[in-house]
Amino acid sequence: MKVHNFGAGPSILPREVIEQSAAGVLNFNDSGMSILEISHRSELFEKVLNEAISLVRELLNVPENYHVLFLSGGASFHFTMVPQNLMKTKAAYVESGVWAKKAIKESQLFGDTKVIASSADKNFTYLPAIENIPADADYLHCTSNNTIYGSQMKSFPVTTIPLVCDMSSDFLSRPVDVSQFGMIYAGAQKNVGPSGTSIVIIRNDLLDNYKPNTPTILRYKTHVDANSLYNTPPVFAIYTCMLTLRWLKKLGGLKAMEAINNKKAELLYNALESNSLFNLPVAKADRSYMNVVFTIDDKEKEKAFLDFCKSKNIVGIKGHKSVGGFRASIYNALPIDSVQFLVDAIAEFTAQ
Amino acid sequence: MKVHNFGAGPSILPREVIEQSAAGVLNFNDSGMSILEISHRSELFEKVLNEAISLVRELLNVPENYHVLFLSGGASFHFTMVPQNLMKTKAAYVESGVWAKKAIKESQLFGDTKVIASSADKNFTYLPAIENIPADADYLHCTSNNTIYGSQMKSFPVTTIPLVCDMSSDFLSRPVDVSQFGMIYAGAQKNVGPSGTSIVIIRNDLLDNYKPNTPTILRYKTHVDANSLYNTPPVFAIYTCMLTLRWLKKLGGLKAMEAINNKKAELLYNALESNSLFNLPVAKADRSYMNVVFTIDDKEKEKAFLDFCKSKNIVGIKGHKSVGGFRASIYNALPIDSVQFLVDAIAEFTAQ
Repeated sequence: MKVHNFGAGPSILPREVIEQSAAGVLNFNDSGMSILEISHRSELFEKVLNEAISLVRELLNVPENYHVLFLSGGASFHFTMVPQNLMKTKAAYVESGVWAKKAIKESQLFGDTKVIASSADKNFTYLPAIENIPADADYLHCTSNNTIYGSQMKSFPVTTIPLVCDMSSDFLSRPVDVSQFGMIYAGAQKNVGPSGTSIVIIRNDLLDNYKPNTPTILRYKTHVDANSLYNTPPVFAIYTCMLTLRWLKKLGGLKAMEAINNKKAELLYNALESNSLFNLPVAKADRSYMNVVFTIDDKEKEKAFLDFCKSKNIVGIKGHKSVGGFRASIYNALPIDSVQFLVDAIAEFTAQ
Repeated sequence: MKVHNFGAGPSILPREVIEQSAAGVLNFNDSGMSILEISHRSELFEKVLNEAISLVRELLNVPENYHVLFLSGGASFHFTMVPQNLMKTKAAYVESGVWAKKAIKESQLFGDTKVIASSADKNFTYLPAIENIPADADYLHCTSNNTIYGSQMKSFPVTTIPLVCDMSSDFLSRPVDVSQFGMIYAGAQKNVGPSGTSIVIIRNDLLDNYKPNTPTILRYKTHVDANSLYNTPPVFAIYTCMLTLRWLKKLGGLKAMEAINNKKAELLYNALESNSLFNLPVAKADRSYMNVVFTIDDKEKEKAFLDFCKSKNIVGIKGHKSVGGFRASIYNALPIDSVQFLVDAIAEFTAQ
């Protein structure tokens, strides 16, 4: 059964990664053991971890004064780790969606949290202008891509204070200049691997600012000092991430990936723009190339389109409850054929 | 290649679980998608999670006033979550090994932490008597099994205050009376599944005691309210745990498992006791039925035995650096044939 998986995450992974991952579960590298059964302190796993870290460094051209970490759990842990590790007195946040709101809420528990820009007034259908960044804030936090609302930053603010970015839903979908950031974090389960791990890129000079009572496991410094092996890491999740990173490199890296992603997004947005039945609620300049949000006015037609998609094995297309309508997540691993299939389905449904 | 995997964790899993797990990576339940690609909010995954929770409840006969959670990350997160959630003014800890020490260190960040019993004086080669439990402490924390030192509690203290137990390395290896505990937690990667998830059993009345500034993700109440779906859970790890739980049930549950584990441990301990070349450093009454620690006086013979094991595909037998010597972890999934194989290898080596 051919499924077209537009799920928002955990989401589609490259088929060859899935096959290699399954093979590793049965017998990892001819060790006679499953990847699930090997020690995280073994040479077998250290090679996997170090290759994963090297590939992130290589693909993103990470400068030498940054560390790359693979940690347990997803981005939600970073909502509390960021203020505990980086806030001395004050932090600035951009409120551009649900995940930003959660990050702000957790930061407020640890100190003065200024929301310096927000698009809450129009249900996050655009990205707020980021102006008047307070020079005395310890960092500025932003979200590069809003999975739920379907908006995406096309460029990042230039600031004198460290820029911290939650890149969970567009990490490794395009090149970014890491040197613009103090820290980047991302849950793996969109473009990189299964749920259960997150990736952190953090600049050297930010490691020693943690508040005195920060639990050891929540200090980035702990994980830097232990090369991501302070606690038992999610071995399988990191292994599968490493396989995806290899796939990305083989494909030609982030420039090649971006070109494919642009093509997919343009194909779908163009089809929706020229279709009067569907609406695109997000401001054109801010539209996400990862999560395409679209709606239909008539509730009955909305239901009919969902049923129509289901009949065609188009999966994960239902919009988030806070937005309604539809959301097609077109992450790295989603083939352009699936996007074309959805475009054809939209045309067929509209013609009916 | 037949490998005998005595690794301390992540460690051996039942072969049928490995095969089912790999099949789920390729195509989960005939969905046409990998278990890595399905949404944690999908009906497909909710069934997995709910079955896993039900099986824990059934196998341990968990009373109705307790919740069962599957969380991101391993036991190390609970070292900080326990004091943040359960300590109002004071907590009591038993110091019986490395993990207990780590739990104590993290508790000290959040309040008055009394070490009421310790076996640090003899490098944790016995379990300290637990006496004079302070009635005004908010909880008593203990570690049921010390993976590194090879000791295991054969019974648990009866107290008027909530008993909190780190059962990471012997969880589901034997029946326990859950009603004796306020809370049990365990990383999955010994007896239950791959690394990346932990299981919590917590009593209802303990959920509202968290300190005011506890991050949302570190409150047990958050995860109880969301049925373990507050953040994206480690889907694959929970799936594989569910498969192991099914295997345990099919095998006859925890009494049947305990009988097998006792047989394995006795086979190995008896062989070592009657062998004058090897030493058993742990006090006989406190020896672990999960991690059998043994040593040899001569450093050259130690090296020779490790090489001998390696030549026979006996894996993971090297002792932890803080103890030296050897450690044979004989978790639930390790077949008695592998224990017999090790016993035979010990005899062969001794005869040489």
